[in-house]
Amino acid sequence: MKRIIVLINCNDRQGIIASVTNFIQKQNGNIVYIDQHVDRENLMFFMRLECEFAKATFSVEKFEENFAESFSEKFNMNWQLFDADIKPKMALFVSKYEHCLYDILSRYSANELDVVIPLIISNHPDLEHIANSFNIPYYYIKVTKDTKKVAEDLQLKLLQEYKVDFIVLARYMQIISSKLIEDYTNHIINIHHSFLPAFPGAKPYHSAFERGVKIIGATSHYVTEDLDEGPIIEQDITRVTHTNTIKDFILKGKDLEKIVLSRAIKLHTKRKVMVYKNKTVVFI
Amino acid sequence: MKRIIVLINCNDRQGIIASVTNFIQKQNGNIVYIDQHVDRENLMFFMRLECEFAKATFSVEKFEENFAESFSEKFNMNWQLFDADIKPKMALFVSKYEHCLYDILSRYSANELDVVIPLIISNHPDLEHIANSFNIPYYYIKVTKDTKKVAEDLQLKLLQEYKVDFIVLARYMQIISSKLIEDYTNHIINIHHSFLPAFPGAKPYHSAFERGVKIIGATSHYVTEDLDEGPIIEQDITRVTHTNTIKDFILKGKDLEKIVLSRAIKLHTKRKVMVYKNKTVVFI
Amino acid sequence: MKRIIVLINCNDRQGIIASVTNFIQKQNGNIVYIDQHVDRENLMFFMRLECEFAKATFSVEKFEENFAESFSEKFNMNWQLFDADIKPKMALFVSKYEHCLYDILSRYSANELDVVIPLIISNHPDLEHIANSFNIPYYYIKVTKDTKKVAEDLQLKLLQEYKVDFIVLARYMQIISSKLIEDYTNHIINIHHSFLPAFPGAKPYHSAFERGVKIIGATSHYVTEDLDEGPIIEQDITRVTHTNTIKDFILKGKDLEKIVLSRAIKLHTKRKVMVYKNKTVVFI
Amino acid sequence: MKRIIVLINCNDRQGIIASVTNFIQKQNGNIVYIDQHVDRENLMFFMRLECEFAKATFSVEKFEENFAESFSEKFNMNWQLFDADIKPKMALFVSKYEHCLYDILSRYSANELDVVIPLIISNHPDLEHIANSFNIPYYYIKVTKDTKKVAEDLQLKLLQEYKVDFIVLARYMQIISSKLIEDYTNHIINIHHSFLPAFPGAKPYHSAFERGVKIIGATSHYVTEDLDEGPIIEQDITRVTHTNTIKDFILKGKDLEKIVLSRAIKLHTKRKVMVYKNKTVVFI
Repeated sequence: MKRIIVLINCNDRQGIIASVTNFIQKQNGNIVYIDQHVDRENLMFFMRLECEFAKATFSVEKFEENFAESFSEKFNMNWQLFDADIKPKMALFVSKYEHCLYDILSRYSANELDVVIPLIISNHPDLEHIANSFNIPYYYIKVTKDTKKVAEDLQLKLLQEYKVDFIVLARYMQIISSKLIEDYTNHIINIHHSFLPAFPGAKPYHSAFERGVKIIGATSHYVTEDLDEGPIIEQDITRVTHTNTIKDFILKGKDLEKIVLSRAIKLHTKRKVMVYKNKTVVFI
Repeated sequence: MKRIIVLINCNDRQGIIASVTNFIQKQNGNIVYIDQHVDRENLMFFMRLECEFAKATFSVEKFEENFAESFSEKFNMNWQLFDADIKPKMALFVSKYEHCLYDILSRYSANELDVVIPLIISNHPDLEHIANSFNIPYYYIKVTKDTKKVAEDLQLKLLQEYKVDFIVLARYMQIISSKLIEDYTNHIINIHHSFLPAFPGAKPYHSAFERGVKIIGATSHYVTEDLDEGPIIEQDITRVTHTNTIKDFILKGKDLEKIVLSRAIKLHTKRKVMVYKNKTVVFI
Repeated sequence: MKRIIVLINCNDRQGIIASVTNFIQKQNGNIVYIDQHVDRENLMFFMRLECEFAKATFSVEKFEENFAESFSEKFNMNWQLFDADIKPKMALFVSKYEHCLYDILSRYSANELDVVIPLIISNHPDLEHIANSFNIPYYYIKVTKDTKKVAEDLQLKLLQEYKVDFIVLARYMQIISSKLIEDYTNHIINIHHSFLPAFPGAKPYHSAFERGVKIIGATSHYVTEDLDEGPIIEQDITRVTHTNTIKDFILKGKDLEKIVLSRAIKLHTKRKVMVYKNKTVVFI
Repeated sequence: MKRIIVLINCNDRQGIIASVTNFIQKQNGNIVYIDQHVDRENLMFFMRLECEFAKATFSVEKFEENFAESFSEKFNMNWQLFDADIKPKMALFVSKYEHCLYDILSRYSANELDVVIPLIISNHPDLEHIANSFNIPYYYIKVTKDTKKVAEDLQLKLLQEYKVDFIVLARYMQIISSKLIEDYTNHIINIHHSFLPAFPGAKPYHSAFERGVKIIGATSHYVTEDLDEGPIIEQDITRVTHTNTIKDFILKGKDLEKIVLSRAIKLHTKRKVMVYKNKTVVFI
């Protein structure tokens, strides 16, 4: 069987669910999962479908054509189609912190992630030995004020060469260029080491310590032009006390960061995240 | 508009979703929410629909008739229909602990619960003053070894008189009779003061303390013949340390109990819980 | 036995613990609990002691005198002494929300809180019936732009008359005056319905919804001149999803607010909170 | 400065804290941290001290001698002394699961753990490549019914050769021999993949799925003769829903297991865990 994931987004109106499910049936498809959400305030409709079709007779192109004909205009619908059997290509950007990298790669080697990781890009040479031990090409591209433009071009070229579908910033300590954000809108996942919107920007653990909070957090979000203000995919928290130093905050935070980031990656690769109005619908 | 909730449960097979959504549309209904689940292991299908119909033309009886005709046989389907505007009648059973009772009644008086509470039944007179302050009839029915049968008959009579839909045991410290369980299958909600299946039966906080656990819990479940083994609706936990005494466990546990029980009540009244194989599907 | 709680705060230096414990022993006291903390960054020392003395021979005045003589100067020590058997007097300030009030009063009636509640003050008459059912005097003091000064004077007068030790703002929707804050420095406990420092000020649930966070929180803190920026005593969180409306946020938040506020009250009344540099040391 | 950790355990009686702190001061030591606990039910006293001494004049042997003289008899005291600068030697036992191993080793390489890992022992050859990439000797010791005794002897010999202080079973899927448990009483840390005491023994995720729980957990404990019944060091949990399959339970559980196990290792190596009556006092 061929498994297809369809994501739909349009203004809410009567009859969408029935029309779409009916369409799938007429294409001889079987709906395996259906998730749906309506934002009542903004009257927006969201749906995620997993459908199965007989491999012999199913053609993605034909399905897309028929789907577009039936719905694109009628419901003014945005939709995306994914072949569930094709693993997306994920590029990792890292700097010097190794915890997220190790965590992602150990999941990868245990076949826990439905992705292909064709390359790792870093602005530091420090973590190359880890990439090597997992047999993944590691590109050290130095980023300084002067080389920033050249570095970005090099990054983009690599991403194109490797046909990268989405990017994960696994504690990559650099601002991402507008060009890259534009090319990969809602396809760059960052992990920020605070419970956003509290403590955006640099040194959030220091700020959290200074403020005397009793809970710290981590936030995974899609990168937008506004630093740490993109659509939030996943968050989690852990307790801290007055006995914890900033160093303790950082250590506890590392565990949060790697777990939260990996959850976001899984949600993204399973096509369970839909973005609108700088927020996410996350089907779980 | 008339809002109807439909719960469906049958063996999984191709085309159910499309058939049902199509049916709703043909009845001039609009599907507002759809939740669906397939248990792949047992090949069981579950669906919850919220639909809206024009009040003027809609008849529950006619809908039920048409639905039965279309599906009952074809898919060997179990289904239930609820009018979303009719609040179910909930009886409270209490003993001497007041925390769950106060919590439920304060939510009730703040219109947080979509129920009617026609009566409170207790095997002790202690909490009558609370019932009084909320203007709810309180029936003190003493339960001893000798009076058990008489007491149960009296309880059943009251439940019938008040047309009670479901029962909440808000720390009612008595075993429920088979007759009552049978009459209210999957309609008696209990709160057990442990993280089931750990520590079933009496004095779970004492057992948890003895075992030296670092986390305690509370579990809300439907009552079955097997003590503390019914289908779990909701659970939650809180941390404890070596500094906590049994008394601390009990105090911390009270907060868990009331929160978990109220969540279970809300899920039940919104028809979001479906039971099968001694487990629950909880649509959230 | 007489039980005494001593809180100590001074610059860190060698020998404090040994000196103080030695002193207690020489006063024929037995140390039942000792908690200590050093802030290495600021070189501040904190200690909480619970000690027992023979009732017949112990005099608080004598102890204080001896303590002052031995330590106040030598270590430049701030210290406070509490008789563990005297329950502090707690005033409740409320507006229209009832969930925190019910929660606190039901704990109070179950003897869960080691306080006396001599009065409830409100800027609305709505919750008087609840105060009545618990037999606690309820003072409705209207607060408008014009009456603000008069209202505050009346509040202060009542607090003095009832010899109130500390104040709990149980969702009191008014800014507290500087005079009151000054008189009750670190003795006014507020519950803010967000995970501070995220979403200070008005309508935090609306802001949280707008931002698309996946977790909401509540924060209990001491009130200072800077709105929602006082020392944090306790925080907790709960998960939300895209399916939750603002109304859901508010309902989920209510459960957080009441639990977090009651934890803060307990910590305060057990003298487990020490304030410095706008942060708290919370001994648990 | 020389930093020393002292753990004390004895029957509770008046004056212990003052006596010990006084003793430290007379030895010209400075108490940096003090943690203390009294089990009121069993009248047991526990204390953990961190003290600093001038390196030039301090002798561990002399200190131990003086300490024993002053307290061992007087208070019938059990006590242990640790040089905070000496890292304990930790042996890892693994089978085929790699998540805990990767997690521990990545922390180790980031200098997050205050241990030395001289060797890894496994009953399978599968994870040798991971050990190699971290340059740690890997001993593959096959364990079958017939070779069990020989294998254990070999294990013990290696542990002695490498002067191992404590053992971590990082999902080692074998029962540990009585001899090993005896030699390393309260020095073998296991991670069990359930929220003990629920679901001890084999296949806990399957049992949890079957029971329909809404929360799963992981438990780290010291190994005793009674399977999964040793003193609990740390536990944590995560939510599951009806949509999760057993495979999902296992994946979610892996994240719990590695986090909980690493927390237990850190607590143990910082000498923050004291065992009595099959429970733990964990100073945090």
